[in-house]
Amino acid sequence: MTDPHQDLRDALRALCAEFPAEYHRKVDEDKAYPEAFVDKLTSEGWMAALIPEEFGGSGLGLVEASIIMEEINRSGGNAGACHGQMYNMNTLLRHGSDVQKRHYLPKIASGQLRLQSMAVTEPTTGTDTTKIKTTAVRKGDKYVINGQKVWISRVQHSDLMILLARTTPLAEVTRKSEGMSIFIVDIKAATGNGMEVKPISNMVNHETNELFFDNLEIPAENLIGEEGLGFRYILDGLNAERTLIAAECIGDGFWFLDKITAYAKERTVFGRPIGQNQGVQFPIAEAKIELEAANLMRWEACRLFDAHAPCGEQANMAKYLAAKASWEAANACLQFHGGFGFATEYDVERKFRETRLYQVAPISTNMILSYVAEHVLGLPRSF
Amino acid sequence: MTDPHQDLRDALRALCAEFPAEYHRKVDEDKAYPEAFVDKLTSEGWMAALIPEEFGGSGLGLVEASIIMEEINRSGGNAGACHGQMYNMNTLLRHGSDVQKRHYLPKIASGQLRLQSMAVTEPTTGTDTTKIKTTAVRKGDKYVINGQKVWISRVQHSDLMILLARTTPLAEVTRKSEGMSIFIVDIKAATGNGMEVKPISNMVNHETNELFFDNLEIPAENLIGEEGLGFRYILDGLNAERTLIAAECIGDGFWFLDKITAYAKERTVFGRPIGQNQGVQFPIAEAKIELEAANLMRWEACRLFDAHAPCGEQANMAKYLAAKASWEAANACLQFHGGFGFATEYDVERKFRETRLYQVAPISTNMILSYVAEHVLGLPRSF
Amino acid sequence: MTDPHQDLRDALRALCAEFPAEYHRKVDEDKAYPEAFVDKLTSEGWMAALIPEEFGGSGLGLVEASIIMEEINRSGGNAGACHGQMYNMNTLLRHGSDVQKRHYLPKIASGQLRLQSMAVTEPTTGTDTTKIKTTAVRKGDKYVINGQKVWISRVQHSDLMILLARTTPLAEVTRKSEGMSIFIVDIKAATGNGMEVKPISNMVNHETNELFFDNLEIPAENLIGEEGLGFRYILDGLNAERTLIAAECIGDGFWFLDKITAYAKERTVFGRPIGQNQGVQFPIAEAKIELEAANLMRWEACRLFDAHAPCGEQANMAKYLAAKASWEAANACLQFHGGFGFATEYDVERKFRETRLYQVAPISTNMILSYVAEHVLGLPRSF
Amino acid sequence: MTDPHQDLRDALRALCAEFPAEYHRKVDEDKAYPEAFVDKLTSEGWMAALIPEEFGGSGLGLVEASIIMEEINRSGGNAGACHGQMYNMNTLLRHGSDVQKRHYLPKIASGQLRLQSMAVTEPTTGTDTTKIKTTAVRKGDKYVINGQKVWISRVQHSDLMILLARTTPLAEVTRKSEGMSIFIVDIKAATGNGMEVKPISNMVNHETNELFFDNLEIPAENLIGEEGLGFRYILDGLNAERTLIAAECIGDGFWFLDKITAYAKERTVFGRPIGQNQGVQFPIAEAKIELEAANLMRWEACRLFDAHAPCGEQANMAKYLAAKASWEAANACLQFHGGFGFATEYDVERKFRETRLYQVAPISTNMILSYVAEHVLGLPRSF
Repeated sequence: MTDPHQDLRDALRALCAEFPAEYHRKVDEDKAYPEAFVDKLTSEGWMAALIPEEFGGSGLGLVEASIIMEEINRSGGNAGACHGQMYNMNTLLRHGSDVQKRHYLPKIASGQLRLQSMAVTEPTTGTDTTKIKTTAVRKGDKYVINGQKVWISRVQHSDLMILLARTTPLAEVTRKSEGMSIFIVDIKAATGNGMEVKPISNMVNHETNELFFDNLEIPAENLIGEEGLGFRYILDGLNAERTLIAAECIGDGFWFLDKITAYAKERTVFGRPIGQNQGVQFPIAEAKIELEAANLMRWEACRLFDAHAPCGEQANMAKYLAAKASWEAANACLQFHGGFGFATEYDVERKFRETRLYQVAPISTNMILSYVAEHVLGLPRSF
Repeated sequence: MTDPHQDLRDALRALCAEFPAEYHRKVDEDKAYPEAFVDKLTSEGWMAALIPEEFGGSGLGLVEASIIMEEINRSGGNAGACHGQMYNMNTLLRHGSDVQKRHYLPKIASGQLRLQSMAVTEPTTGTDTTKIKTTAVRKGDKYVINGQKVWISRVQHSDLMILLARTTPLAEVTRKSEGMSIFIVDIKAATGNGMEVKPISNMVNHETNELFFDNLEIPAENLIGEEGLGFRYILDGLNAERTLIAAECIGDGFWFLDKITAYAKERTVFGRPIGQNQGVQFPIAEAKIELEAANLMRWEACRLFDAHAPCGEQANMAKYLAAKASWEAANACLQFHGGFGFATEYDVERKFRETRLYQVAPISTNMILSYVAEHVLGLPRSF
Repeated sequence: MTDPHQDLRDALRALCAEFPAEYHRKVDEDKAYPEAFVDKLTSEGWMAALIPEEFGGSGLGLVEASIIMEEINRSGGNAGACHGQMYNMNTLLRHGSDVQKRHYLPKIASGQLRLQSMAVTEPTTGTDTTKIKTTAVRKGDKYVINGQKVWISRVQHSDLMILLARTTPLAEVTRKSEGMSIFIVDIKAATGNGMEVKPISNMVNHETNELFFDNLEIPAENLIGEEGLGFRYILDGLNAERTLIAAECIGDGFWFLDKITAYAKERTVFGRPIGQNQGVQFPIAEAKIELEAANLMRWEACRLFDAHAPCGEQANMAKYLAAKASWEAANACLQFHGGFGFATEYDVERKFRETRLYQVAPISTNMILSYVAEHVLGLPRSF
Repeated sequence: MTDPHQDLRDALRALCAEFPAEYHRKVDEDKAYPEAFVDKLTSEGWMAALIPEEFGGSGLGLVEASIIMEEINRSGGNAGACHGQMYNMNTLLRHGSDVQKRHYLPKIASGQLRLQSMAVTEPTTGTDTTKIKTTAVRKGDKYVINGQKVWISRVQHSDLMILLARTTPLAEVTRKSEGMSIFIVDIKAATGNGMEVKPISNMVNHETNELFFDNLEIPAENLIGEEGLGFRYILDGLNAERTLIAAECIGDGFWFLDKITAYAKERTVFGRPIGQNQGVQFPIAEAKIELEAANLMRWEACRLFDAHAPCGEQANMAKYLAAKASWEAANACLQFHGGFGFATEYDVERKFRETRLYQVAPISTNMILSYVAEHVLGLPRSF
């Protein structure tokens, strides 16, 4: 069967081929941001895939956006450095005012601005988002922000950030999901002027941070949509996020499978290629099968999302299946490389660390199982 | 999303509803054949789904045939009693002569004849089919059959059987896959006249047998297709068989999930429904996710098969995924029913035994992994 | 290393060798009780292993009792037909009066009486034992029993049964674990005179029943120990029960491993023994390793029990590990026998069904995990 | 039960407490060697545990040595920086001449010399050791070494290294395991004088290297034991190595369990400690059970080794079980810490990376399964 997106894939592969393993390895070793790579993605228009043509983008759907993310990871890179813009874009597109869209989107499309960050999670709330303690209080034509966020990614390499804060105290709303609002924050203006950024050193070269807000003032016109509906807007974007992460895991999975399959064919021990041993080839074959199944679910989720049909079930399942398949492929790839799997120069250990994150972020495996149990199967909520 | 096959499903569900759990449980206890059920399927035309309209059938595709099989298992029944006709049909349709088709198909469509059995496996060969020892030697207008088969299903409840035998000795062919031929055998005529049938008692109520051939004579016109090409014809049919079995596993999986979900909601221990415990609901949710993924692969295989596109990869993967998901659903269903899972009257133990078979038959999990490793990933053959 | 219990094992093996696979297969097919086998075990004194010498038994410990159970299952039999006496014995030994012991134990030791049944579980309570609804009300020198029990095993082949009933209503006790008592019930006298026995047909040939009590009168002297302490007495016996079940699983596990190892050496497909394939030999080796580890934990539990040291942790872990290892061995054994694994005459399917029960009974895997989480690791109770 | 080695444990714990998490975290970040820690271990005599008292050591057994390794990992450290001396010691002790022992052991005991490295593996041979290509050719009172080694650990922080080289060409020996010899190499003297050391950057802070030999000359008296028997001597030491690694995994496992249990009790999301969720507590409980079982096997291996009884089966099983249990504990610990598991400052990610290595080194899981299949179960060799 021919792939209807072969042209898109070909273009991405050509771009990615300019950034070989050595590039991504060096970025990882230096704990750096892949500036050149992201610039190239931007200048070729891929970072603006989801932006409508009238605002300077290419007006593509989630299917195409997911292919872009997949191909980055499949090439040996890590879309985690730039996928935020894909996630966050939907929030601005769907809920931003016409003024906001005309103001921001063309600049994002051209690469003048990056919209890479989303500040939702707080240290004491975890995934219990309605309990957030960060507040936004209206004072004249400003909102004043106080509170703290954690795991806020790419803040040091983004210009804009979407921030969720409570605008009505929890005690004053009838439903705990009400009374929160989202804002566009100008990161450079905020840093040092009410917002402090504290990087978190972590297992992968993923720039993520704690944010501390101490009377940060932001213009009232930076409110997105209606005050009080922010949580609902955030929920809207989760299916896109999960589906895109699924696509990245699919990309990782194919990278691992290609890498270990090639190695297992050529590496000879005890007089035969190690890939001739069922103890080696079976786990690889299992990962292949699971990956292909996960991929079908990813397409299903993309298709439904682009058709504006409900896709929570499919997006969650796709994320679950893809993260699991990628992790199994990663383990097979690491394991059957023997010591070489741990050596930096084979890239396996880097990708292994990176793909492990997707069992936890942006939503943990357990939360997906809870979602399926409660919302798909109708079982009682367990917590 | 609406299901384009809802009418087909509704018809099957109405039929199956006439044969409730008690019926299938009784058939199992009596180690009997579900005559009434199969008669009903036949009289309503479902057993002739794949037969072209010109021969009295409904001319449907594998998509529809697979839905029929799925719905039988999903209703609490077991399509194993009758799926042989679906598998074997393709062999006759694709390779039978016009004379043969005109002779047999209308009678099969009307239910006058059953084509339920396929005799390939032998005790000493397992899945190494080219090593079969059963021979067919041409003598005038007859072929004379000698040898032995094992695991030949539904022989006691079928009229016709397709038989694979070697017509040219292995030593005289250039490729071991050559020199075998397939024949239509009239079971009733053969039994006691050169063919002995010895039933094999087994864990499920699945009628399967050893066959012993001692100079069985069959008319030369019962040869299907060309002499010597039988193995190739058999291979042709395997993808349909695997895809249909996948659909049956999907049906089983949904039955298990429905059963345990309902039970977990209503069964209260320690003051709460057991389904509120993550230790119960998570394995159910996992099985649900895996089942839905397997189902997507099954549709992919059906779609390709009906489009006459290569589908070996998808058919094998669908069988692997569906049998695995169904077995996980079965274990969750049995386990969380506690003692009740083992009690005959809950039907769980019966379905549990039945679905276990599909990790072994018609092809084992290991053989699928070998297929994927060798034919999809290009790794060296391991045996 | 020499086995200090080699003589014991040799004696059991000699006895078991008189009851080959055909015997146990026939008992299973007939859904019968292995009378001859249990009689032989009794006449040779093994059923009285735990009875002190002064009462006519051999005064052995749990180590030896567990070896007896293990060897029965390892020989291809099923200790489930008779292990109740081992479990229940401890309750009578530890909490029975001297009069009771002198009355019952010599008759049990000689085989005149069988003490095979323990009636605790009720349909609506599951493992939430303190909620039992069966009551025992003192009336003069009798107790009058009303209520219902389920999963009460071997009632039709035992003379005596230990029964747990509430003697003080739940509303009147300060702790829900108080107010229950245990009694010795003369099964033959009770049946039809206040106790109705309704067998439950199930996946294994395990005689188990529902019991219905309608004003069953039992002599007051049949109370064991103090009124109100019955639940505590029952708890006392659980560690012995779990450890003995672990030993039976160990026996099953070795049976499966021996069976499949022998088959994998001799069964040749594609020109080589199937055991040469890593896809076959690795799962067998994994089951072997897990079984040996489980066995070490079983010895640890036995040793602590016989030393009257706390052993709840070890007994629960041993049960968990052994039931898991045996089930993995069972699946490997069934799977790699191909179709033959399902055929009755190979005995694999019978043992497969039997060993599955031990994931559920006498305590489910989830309840053990809860126990370890709460009582060993100190995590909060989850339900 | 009291622990007979409580004093030993207490001493190690006191020592390790002087090197808290910050110390090991800093060493890891700097990719440094834990000099102060190893010095302290040496000055307190622990690095000389296995050296007989007559040579200045404490003459302890493998039981005690394994406790030392376990406690290091259990405290949050990594015995990989120094366990080589424990492995290699046995080779020198058992096969070294009296002269060699008197020369080296007192200096090792005092810390004047470190014997941390063993050079066996080569890039093209993997675990197929008899195919090594490094040669040692006798020239007068020297041996001249040529060839290449890989994964040779601690060379930059050790003084002595044991080297395996072929002294008789493969073509001239009757059995491929003959004709290899082991030598003591003075690392500092060799470096730059025929031996080049090339470090391998890898996922864990584990100093490991490629070695290139170009006419390295070593004194003939540095031959250990008889020429030609080197492979046998190496094999002798493997059981000690595997058992010690098992103990390190046990230490890791306890560290992970302690860490995640404490976190799961205190971390509150959705109004309850996360440890109250079965989806969190069950995987922790499973890892606990598997770890305790692995630990029993480790004691069994130690006990047999110290009794000079065959222990290959137990040593291999202990390594397999402990590495598996530790990895499961590691995954539970990482996963349920959410994002915090990935943050450097929680130490989880460091230990996670470290313990993963033990599925591959010093022997891979697959090689252990092959060993058990072939040497314990008697199945055919699979490669």
